[in-house]
Amino acid sequence: MGNNYKRAFPSNEQEKIPENILVGINPITEALKGERPIDKILLSQEERGGRLGEIVGMAKEKGIPLIRVNKSKLDSITGDARHQGVMAYVAAHEYSSLEDILSNGGENPLLLLLDEINDPHNLGAILRTAEAAGVDGVVIPKRRSVTLTPTVARISAGAIEHVPVARIVNMSQTIDFLKEQGLWIVGADANGSKNIWESNLDGPLAIVIGGEDKGLGRLISEKCDFLVSLPMMGKINSLNASVAAALIMYEARRQRGCN
Amino acid sequence: MGNNYKRAFPSNEQEKIPENILVGINPITEALKGERPIDKILLSQEERGGRLGEIVGMAKEKGIPLIRVNKSKLDSITGDARHQGVMAYVAAHEYSSLEDILSNGGENPLLLLLDEINDPHNLGAILRTAEAAGVDGVVIPKRRSVTLTPTVARISAGAIEHVPVARIVNMSQTIDFLKEQGLWIVGADANGSKNIWESNLDGPLAIVIGGEDKGLGRLISEKCDFLVSLPMMGKINSLNASVAAALIMYEARRQRGCN
Repeated sequence: MGNNYKRAFPSNEQEKIPENILVGINPITEALKGERPIDKILLSQEERGGRLGEIVGMAKEKGIPLIRVNKSKLDSITGDARHQGVMAYVAAHEYSSLEDILSNGGENPLLLLLDEINDPHNLGAILRTAEAAGVDGVVIPKRRSVTLTPTVARISAGAIEHVPVARIVNMSQTIDFLKEQGLWIVGADANGSKNIWESNLDGPLAIVIGGEDKGLGRLISEKCDFLVSLPMMGKINSLNASVAAALIMYEARRQRGCN
Repeated sequence: MGNNYKRAFPSNEQEKIPENILVGINPITEALKGERPIDKILLSQEERGGRLGEIVGMAKEKGIPLIRVNKSKLDSITGDARHQGVMAYVAAHEYSSLEDILSNGGENPLLLLLDEINDPHNLGAILRTAEAAGVDGVVIPKRRSVTLTPTVARISAGAIEHVPVARIVNMSQTIDFLKEQGLWIVGADANGSKNIWESNLDGPLAIVIGGEDKGLGRLISEKCDFLVSLPMMGKINSLNASVAAALIMYEARRQRGCN
């Protein structure tokens, strides 16, 4: 009886866990049918087939990352809620498409590509600055990147509502596509032969910023048309990712004027 | 017996609390006699005179802020340690003097004045960028400002070892003093009539950044020779304090060249 009573009120269970987490087969199936943006789905390794199989199929069709985890990990994230072998992280805001961002940019687009930024404070700060610098859109990978979490939304100070963010599967292929669309690709790298003040950052441009720990990967930096460094006048050799991104975005803005 | 045993090993008690906190009359008296930089001292409202009175006298002579708190507050911060009515916060690094910073700057000094920055992450990020931008020194007030805490040191990524930080009693008087020394005082303010790219930031300069919540206070902004804004191309109307400071410091560096 007690157990039936509890099961009859799944919404009470949902209230115990963070608002960006969905738990159980029905809520996640409905979210996949509707418009709620899902960042990723965690599935129990032990359970397959049936309605979980349906969720896998719908998620694959939508390009949503699926991650198999131990049941004990699901238990620990969802607490007392009955997860039925599946949970999902919901994004704090809708994602845009790369095509929409490009058409935003008109004839002189300015894009920001973030390769493997992992700290939600950095992504939030970067979105806030990108909006202020008049960047047309921000591009992040679907995997190995922080997503539009509630923390990102809070740190962005409202910018998440105004600057479009697109998720892409493969950064290397996205760079090829943007080159075909006529954009120059500039990577932020301490080994850049010219600094931001010596480089031409006017014209259709995508700025690529690497992850906090490793910076730009070798493959991505080789894909760039050119690399720019930040002037470092002291003894330390790197800046915080959100500060580096701000300095490059605003230098591109300075060179193209406040229009 | 158990109590005597415990009292015979005060160093064990000290180990239980954070390394930037000193507890009890003897450790704090010794720190005041020596060279350890103390940010502030908390005293129990209930206890006065005696050896506590000596501490008050020494702290006043050194210009260290003294704050009277309830004994229960001391109990909660120091845990089991026997605080004897007094505790102190030790800075993660020595402070410099304003005079030392000015002589660092030679004929074309570039200073950063931070009025009431309260978030240690912001101060740490600002120190990191200031070091990279070749700022001669950073000035913070003794009260109503975060100090050189362990978090600030960590976020600064080593910059705390290289960029001098001076603490001053009164920001308004410090601005007057810097004017007498031939510096121009520029305040960062959304109401600035010119933006950073339209303003002359070459020459002897002190940049003033306000606190995270309120920005520059009225008194301080009236003291400035001129105010500069940051170009805001979107819908949000402010940037994170560490990003704003970075953009202004680097623009000043761009205008004066990388020397």
